[in-house]
Amino acid sequence: MCHHCVIESVKSGMLSRRSLFKGAITAAGAAALASALPPRPLFAAEPPHKAEDLTHELWEQFPTYFGGQQLFIEQKFSHAKDTFNLNEWRVSEHTGTHIDAPLHFSADGKSVAELPVEDLIAPLVVVDIRTKAADNPDAQLTPDDIKAWEAANGELPEGAVVALLSGWGAHVATEKFRNVSADGKTLHFPGFHVETAQLLLEKPTVKAITVDTLSLDHGPSPDFAVHNTWLPAGRYGIEGVANLDKLPAKGATIVVGAPKVRGGTGGPARVFALV
Amino acid sequence: MCHHCVIESVKSGMLSRRSLFKGAITAAGAAALASALPPRPLFAAEPPHKAEDLTHELWEQFPTYFGGQQLFIEQKFSHAKDTFNLNEWRVSEHTGTHIDAPLHFSADGKSVAELPVEDLIAPLVVVDIRTKAADNPDAQLTPDDIKAWEAANGELPEGAVVALLSGWGAHVATEKFRNVSADGKTLHFPGFHVETAQLLLEKPTVKAITVDTLSLDHGPSPDFAVHNTWLPAGRYGIEGVANLDKLPAKGATIVVGAPKVRGGTGGPARVFALV
Repeated sequence: MCHHCVIESVKSGMLSRRSLFKGAITAAGAAALASALPPRPLFAAEPPHKAEDLTHELWEQFPTYFGGQQLFIEQKFSHAKDTFNLNEWRVSEHTGTHIDAPLHFSADGKSVAELPVEDLIAPLVVVDIRTKAADNPDAQLTPDDIKAWEAANGELPEGAVVALLSGWGAHVATEKFRNVSADGKTLHFPGFHVETAQLLLEKPTVKAITVDTLSLDHGPSPDFAVHNTWLPAGRYGIEGVANLDKLPAKGATIVVGAPKVRGGTGGPARVFALV
Repeated sequence: MCHHCVIESVKSGMLSRRSLFKGAITAAGAAALASALPPRPLFAAEPPHKAEDLTHELWEQFPTYFGGQQLFIEQKFSHAKDTFNLNEWRVSEHTGTHIDAPLHFSADGKSVAELPVEDLIAPLVVVDIRTKAADNPDAQLTPDDIKAWEAANGELPEGAVVALLSGWGAHVATEKFRNVSADGKTLHFPGFHVETAQLLLEKPTVKAITVDTLSLDHGPSPDFAVHNTWLPAGRYGIEGVANLDKLPAKGATIVVGAPKVRGGTGGPARVFALV
């Protein structure tokens, strides 16, 4: 198929709401488009000169979406007794700063090991909704926030990862990170709006969305609408990133050290931004 | 202390064999020197234009140094039943492509979470000993190999990670990766020579050494001499890297996605080279 035909085919797939929600056509179309395009350069204009760590330290009591402990560390060898130290971890794939692979919310989507390397190094777009999130912990990143970002910074760059900066990264060691209601039933933290996920799916080169909170969906979501829209379409997510407040709105390059575990639905990752 | 004094102080510490083996002075001296130097640029001259994945896929039967299985994956939620997939891993820190933090072979060295980000992005030196390793699976990367590399490529770059390319990466899915003797007692694969570790400790900015085999020490090592020299001095290692044969001897930049687990002696990592 010619380059133009691929683009048209993808666009027509994208503009059908039904295919959007089914995801399969979108994912196949995006893959066809990606393979037809010339390779994206690693760095846009100026090469970066420093690295920011977007990873929270992971400890056994790291706050979790479900509330229970998800990392258990057991020492197996000790320097005093064995001349070396070695631990074993028992860990849920969705703990700490971590990946949501398409397989997390689909029957047969890509596992974390199958994400192409080209999708793990990408221009990072930082959408700052800290002001509204300070007033409302259930705030969502809406299509209007994307439009405001584009008005200030130009079109989303080719192959971007789009980050939600809510300010929640600063709360990681406190109760406010989960921010559970008095009855213990509802979480309150910001996330993407489902319409934003839909909007970004119409842009076939956007690789991933990422949040500084516990979930791509905002805390009170009853149905994981963003997860169910974004991941089955073949895109991926990164949850619980740190230090987005140290980055420019545009111009950083994210490097996603996703674990390469066969069949993994995600996993704790080391994430950097090169600025 | 002035810059020159720091260098002299570090050098004098380095040249004492006793302090080398104790390691503590070396580590402290190197840290002092590093903080006195101006920041190293992320990329030497030309910015990189593509990424190579230096990470092997990790699966439950990935070959291990000790021979037993070190990764166990248990599905906790399934898409069919729960609308999403999620697994839990039980994994030794020293499995697959992974980090050896200083704490692995010292009582109180840096954990994997404490490695500075500046040490995780570094110029990568690839020392190719494939010819001698093809003749002798117990081959070691000797000081002469470093000298030969420098004769061909100039001095080791500032802040380098030094990689052993033995060709063993190609054997990862076969018995030859461990290459155990008929009596089951001795492994046979290449590694660093202890004198090379000592030589590189005299270069205070070298961050890490890395191998495409199961251990920094060659297979038949009876005493982990390289581990016991290198790690207690505050430097780190990366074992089981892939695709070194796709890299130039000089000019690539390694990005080490080390897991940021508090108190970890290492851990499975996602490692890239930007070329």
